Amino acid sequence: MEEQLETIRTIDNSFSFNLEGKSKASTFEFPEHGGDPAVFKPYSNGSLDNLLDFSVCLNPMGPPESLAHTILGAIHRTGAYPAPFANSLKLRLGDYFGLKPENFLVTHGSTQLIYTLPELWKPSQSVCIIAPCFSEYEKSFELRGIETHFFLLDPEKDFDLRWEVLEPYLKSIENLGGVILGHPASPSGTLCNKDLIEKLLRFTNKNQNFLIVDETFIDFTEQENFLPEIIHDNPYLILIRTFSKFFSIPGIRLGYGIMNPSIQKQLENFIPPWSAGSIELEVGLMCLDETEYMKETRKFLAKERARIGDLLNSFSTVQLFPSDSCSLLFKLTDNSIYPETLYKNLFKENILIRNCGNFRGLNHRFFRVGIRTKDENTSLINALKSCLG
Amino acid sequence: MEEQLETIRTIDNSFSFNLEGKSKASTFEFPEHGGDPAVFKPYSNGSLDNLLDFSVCLNPMGPPESLAHTILGAIHRTGAYPAPFANSLKLRLGDYFGLKPENFLVTHGSTQLIYTLPELWKPSQSVCIIAPCFSEYEKSFELRGIETHFFLLDPEKDFDLRWEVLEPYLKSIENLGGVILGHPASPSGTLCNKDLIEKLLRFTNKNQNFLIVDETFIDFTEQENFLPEIIHDNPYLILIRTFSKFFSIPGIRLGYGIMNPSIQKQLENFIPPWSAGSIELEVGLMCLDETEYMKETRKFLAKERARIGDLLNSFSTVQLFPSDSCSLLFKLTDNSIYPETLYKNLFKENILIRNCGNFRGLNHRFFRVGIRTKDENTSLINALKSCLG
Repeated sequence: MEEQLETIRTIDNSFSFNLEGKSKASTFEFPEHGGDPAVFKPYSNGSLDNLLDFSVCLNPMGPPESLAHTILGAIHRTGAYPAPFANSLKLRLGDYFGLKPENFLVTHGSTQLIYTLPELWKPSQSVCIIAPCFSEYEKSFELRGIETHFFLLDPEKDFDLRWEVLEPYLKSIENLGGVILGHPASPSGTLCNKDLIEKLLRFTNKNQNFLIVDETFIDFTEQENFLPEIIHDNPYLILIRTFSKFFSIPGIRLGYGIMNPSIQKQLENFIPPWSAGSIELEVGLMCLDETEYMKETRKFLAKERARIGDLLNSFSTVQLFPSDSCSLLFKLTDNSIYPETLYKNLFKENILIRNCGNFRGLNHRFFRVGIRTKDENTSLINALKSCLG
Repeated sequence: MEEQLETIRTIDNSFSFNLEGKSKASTFEFPEHGGDPAVFKPYSNGSLDNLLDFSVCLNPMGPPESLAHTILGAIHRTGAYPAPFANSLKLRLGDYFGLKPENFLVTHGSTQLIYTLPELWKPSQSVCIIAPCFSEYEKSFELRGIETHFFLLDPEKDFDLRWEVLEPYLKSIENLGGVILGHPASPSGTLCNKDLIEKLLRFTNKNQNFLIVDETFIDFTEQENFLPEIIHDNPYLILIRTFSKFFSIPGIRLGYGIMNPSIQKQLENFIPPWSAGSIELEVGLMCLDETEYMKETRKFLAKERARIGDLLNSFSTVQLFPSDSCSLLFKLTDNSIYPETLYKNLFKENILIRNCGNFRGLNHRFFRVGIRTKDENTSLINALKSCLG
């Protein structure tokens, strides 16, 4: 029982995987999300303890040092109900961003917030997702029967989003309710330029369309963080944020949205009370005080992103895409290399990467690697060298 | 800032309360839920550290001893994504109940599950709530625009649920989608008898109506736990469960439902992935091993429920209702005593109780007290003596 339990501990229901399967995409299924290494346990000869998981995008510095201390200090709080709607954290977020507590919706991970967004749509309205994008947006709107349009960014143009192409596309959509934009996008890691976002905001405000900007990776970038500042002037703007990725605590589910109070009220109505537990709340409060950690993370990432980028660029068999995030996206350009072969060979060397075949607009030749520590990244490059020749 | 934060830490958004307000119900607002003592902090002269909170229904023994150890051991797990759909806990629950992992839906507290139930209803269908009942059921169905009917149990008949009255009521409802039943009910603490539940099941199965049985307090009772065993024979039966109450960990949000796999699949589709975090999962696994703690809790409660019941019964000014749960419901029968006066006077003695005026079918003359430790319960009785004369 214990052994069986350990094996299944992190195996997703829906997932089927056969590492010994043929190398055709039809019989080989890549995981739906990153960060599920135990999926492979049954197929692995040895332990997974030494596995380097590049399939997730987390802070390579690990969680803030005070995490354990904070959790320890929060244990006695678990004996009482937390505030039903996370007021302590809303107040602190208001302080942090120079906004009011009413501008924040605190949720159990950003995914709970994503699943609630369609409540703002009328059933007859549709949504435009700028893709590739985190797959849960598509799922959440489909669950509510809302028609979904995809504006596909072209990898061959480095996922560049151009207003002169986007505008006519949006205008062509009947009964548009809103637009979903990743900033930076996932899995490309590409930031939008400010000028484009401003044009998009003018369009969505004028048409009373929501603009949902997924900023779950924004803290990893060097970008001036201008959207929270202009929230008051943009009644239809909603920013999606999370603690899990930047603070490297995906097991502690804590996300939040930034928006105007009237939308906040509408959405919070659909969020069950006590959606942030006692430990989550204390960890969130702690994270927002970690100013030095935030600076160091961005400094390290900027350097390491450039170093690994240069090394990946030196491979003649891959095409690297520009990234401002904590990950790098590349494409296998040499058709003689099977994606499955690369994936399996890396796995044999205890390295797990994220295949991006299930992102709209990409295919199985695209892979994403999260940036880890310097030595670990060097191991990845060396392993890639031996696989890609 | 820090002080302000501490004050607001557990204050609900929507709550307005004026302890110095007039003693008319119209200007005096009791809290919406129990367990929010910090609401009173601004009105309290001293610290709330010595406050005895009888407004919540939690295990008076406190959490299992191994809670801190388990949380400590789970900290390193927060650095990785948990399984998207809590497979480890489903497997363990299956083992515990003698059912399959597919019979369980694990959610972030039972409230997340309650908010998902209306997804099983067709928009034209209605729901019957056997009241008084936990208020979030009503809210969740109203959010989805589903017509809600209330079958009100009569306090004067000890909330006794009789099939010969319920059956014609259910038959009179057009387009019934399902029934919500508390077992034991909240806030009365009354268990339904097996015969009635069996008749109700025959009715709901025959009419393809869902029967949602809220068993969030069932572990506190001595009742033979027969519903999980017959889940396979009842395709429309759903049991709502939680760890928070029985294991006295309301700050750790972890609930689950027991149902047939086809319903489980339908509902899980609406639950965001990773709804149980790493710490919640490990705590859940630990709790299910606490066999001795479970036995001792039930033994203690049976004894203390009887002792406090006898003492409350000896007051000529209150009417006590039968309970099998971890709380006791009573009504002020002496009209010369204002509910607000009792509430405030107890608060002055550092005792917080739950006014039940916001439960359908009850009014402000009803109060619920959670059963706490022997000495604490004696303090409550003594305080009541001085207030009720």
